[in-house]
Amino acid sequence: MKQLYKINSERLLQRVEELSKIGKTPENGVTRKALTKDDYEAQQLVANWMREAGLEVRVDNLGNLIGRKEGNDSNAPSIMIGSHIDTVPNGGKYDGTIGVLGGIEVAQFIHDEGMQTKYPIEVIAFCDEEGTRFQGGLFGSRGMVGKVTELELLKKDDNGISRYEALKSFGLNPDLIHESVRCKGEIKVFLELHIEQGPYLQSIDKPVGIVTGIAGPAWFSVKIFGESGHAGTVPMNLRRDPIAGAAKIIGFIEEVCSKDSNSQTVGTVGKITAIPGGSNVIPELVEFTLDIRDIDLERRNQTISKIKNEIARICKDRELRYEIVEHLIKDPTMCAPHVVEKMMEIGKSLELDAPKMISGAGHDAMAIGEIADIGVIFVRCLNGISHNPKESAAIMDITKGVSLLQETVLNYVK
Amino acid sequence: MKQLYKINSERLLQRVEELSKIGKTPENGVTRKALTKDDYEAQQLVANWMREAGLEVRVDNLGNLIGRKEGNDSNAPSIMIGSHIDTVPNGGKYDGTIGVLGGIEVAQFIHDEGMQTKYPIEVIAFCDEEGTRFQGGLFGSRGMVGKVTELELLKKDDNGISRYEALKSFGLNPDLIHESVRCKGEIKVFLELHIEQGPYLQSIDKPVGIVTGIAGPAWFSVKIFGESGHAGTVPMNLRRDPIAGAAKIIGFIEEVCSKDSNSQTVGTVGKITAIPGGSNVIPELVEFTLDIRDIDLERRNQTISKIKNEIARICKDRELRYEIVEHLIKDPTMCAPHVVEKMMEIGKSLELDAPKMISGAGHDAMAIGEIADIGVIFVRCLNGISHNPKESAAIMDITKGVSLLQETVLNYVK
Repeated sequence: MKQLYKINSERLLQRVEELSKIGKTPENGVTRKALTKDDYEAQQLVANWMREAGLEVRVDNLGNLIGRKEGNDSNAPSIMIGSHIDTVPNGGKYDGTIGVLGGIEVAQFIHDEGMQTKYPIEVIAFCDEEGTRFQGGLFGSRGMVGKVTELELLKKDDNGISRYEALKSFGLNPDLIHESVRCKGEIKVFLELHIEQGPYLQSIDKPVGIVTGIAGPAWFSVKIFGESGHAGTVPMNLRRDPIAGAAKIIGFIEEVCSKDSNSQTVGTVGKITAIPGGSNVIPELVEFTLDIRDIDLERRNQTISKIKNEIARICKDRELRYEIVEHLIKDPTMCAPHVVEKMMEIGKSLELDAPKMISGAGHDAMAIGEIADIGVIFVRCLNGISHNPKESAAIMDITKGVSLLQETVLNYVK
Repeated sequence: MKQLYKINSERLLQRVEELSKIGKTPENGVTRKALTKDDYEAQQLVANWMREAGLEVRVDNLGNLIGRKEGNDSNAPSIMIGSHIDTVPNGGKYDGTIGVLGGIEVAQFIHDEGMQTKYPIEVIAFCDEEGTRFQGGLFGSRGMVGKVTELELLKKDDNGISRYEALKSFGLNPDLIHESVRCKGEIKVFLELHIEQGPYLQSIDKPVGIVTGIAGPAWFSVKIFGESGHAGTVPMNLRRDPIAGAAKIIGFIEEVCSKDSNSQTVGTVGKITAIPGGSNVIPELVEFTLDIRDIDLERRNQTISKIKNEIARICKDRELRYEIVEHLIKDPTMCAPHVVEKMMEIGKSLELDAPKMISGAGHDAMAIGEIADIGVIFVRCLNGISHNPKESAAIMDITKGVSLLQETVLNYVK
């Protein structure tokens, strides 16, 4: 094994455990919200490991922790590796973390080998990927591509502390976030290693996957209006029951998203409410959410339009009225084909048998994708569970993922 | 018209309006909860009208207001007519009321005509049909057939006043409710006139319907357990989504209840919740209520068993787990065929073209059905709306219903 994977698995595992002690919860989870005291402590610890790896460390005005090692070419763009170290409340210890600590391992390897590289290396822990404190995730990565507004800095947490104040308390100057923006051409390639947060790799029994793109989410809420009535007195043929209509629509959503087993469309109804909600009252209104994602923009939009047509048809047939409100529509973000192909090649040489796959969840790479070529590596996680103390990934799988990351970095950094 | 319907419509309408002033709400509805000051005032007013109609008035220890006129045969069972005068919060002015005031019109007619009857007549306003104050409806009618327990008297309203105390405040002795119980044989027939509270009569353009029976409700809650997951990361074919399963089940409930357009089965899902209920989370649990009613006990039970089988089948196919909890199962209550046939005959002679129909909602007659032959007459109400300030019934339709009631009483009372 040593020959294939040049990774210090023991150190990596020990660091994952050590970092997880900061913000540890009674349920053995981790609560480390962005820009809190725990986050600061975690940054200090990670900064020390960055320094050990020969990196020069700073925190930009967005709260991103950045360790950098210059290359031989002082004008060359950087190879950036990383993810985030903040967590959701009572989250897991692998989400984000393995991307940052794995990145440090790569830098450490280069340092230990005394390698001279053409391009600078940057290992980054983005600030507030999760967005649970100030309601707005991917903060550091969006900020780095100039997508954070001043208004967003004024958002307050549950204790009335604004993000502006929180950044100040970290010794940063939020009035200068524009100085932390990177332009196209400054980053040659951004590589992120992350747990899958889904069950796909486990289902096909593979430790590592190579991401071809991050699905674009489309979020809607749907209201179906019918006619309320007494559950006992309105005959079936005189009903205009919105819940029966909603049931048909939800059935169609599942069907249309499942139809092509090769497609990566997913459709989810996560929330549903019937109003007034009495057990012996036919509802007058049923409201539900709809989350549609796909890596193929055209196919996603076709799926949405099929669903909209079916909602119209079902409501017409049943004399129901409907409203569809669009909350968010984002295009998919594609990983750079040259990165994907390089990773496939390396994956083969490392005997990882790593499949191409898509990411259904958003990651910092999605934001950085606006200014740089990106590549994302997924590591299998137990039962697809994440954002939960039960989140788990085997150190062997993480090692394989970091090896793939390392060899990819070594390819680009030379 | 005068010849066909021997009813003083003007007086009846005026009394409906006058009674509706007690407990009137800003929305033009009526809030007259049982055993309140408003209920007392309403009983006093109705008692006066009963006395005008030649009835001797008393309130039994259950709070039932009873006006009685003896017949020639002192041992004969009584012909009882009535309904209730309490309301739900912000309810309508016809629900219950027209059965009591209509009954008084019948007694008034007999009084005015100076008719001597063989059987005694009783006009009754049952106490607390709605059950909104102490959580337990049909109180007076259930009490009259011995189905009220002492425990029930201890139930408190939102202000901490028990039903026991409320009955006392009416000058009654709740320790003696057993003295208000009637036995089989004491009531020859009980007749109730009520607004339909559903849209059927309006849909077939008939003013009055003759009820053949009151459907037996069966109430369940159903839980479907699946596997939670991220809406973006779990491919469709790896999902165990309880909301997709619930949608199929709800579709089947509608289908199985609608299949035979001649059957009077109704099935309603009034409440549904997905847990945890995040818009980007596949739910782990979906819970919904199920209300199944039918006048045909065997058919209702077959429907329930078909639904249970389908839940089992769907959950097995989709690797979901389920729980079905039974909250209430009541047998249907049939109206006495001789009453129904007599009403059909009278309906014809009154040119009402009154159809036979079932009652999907419960009424006081359902309770009294345990000790006496019953008959129920429905009056068309606007758009089927009830328990709402918009509840409305045309005086012409009420007049026709009271005429049918009157002729039926005259048939049995001789």
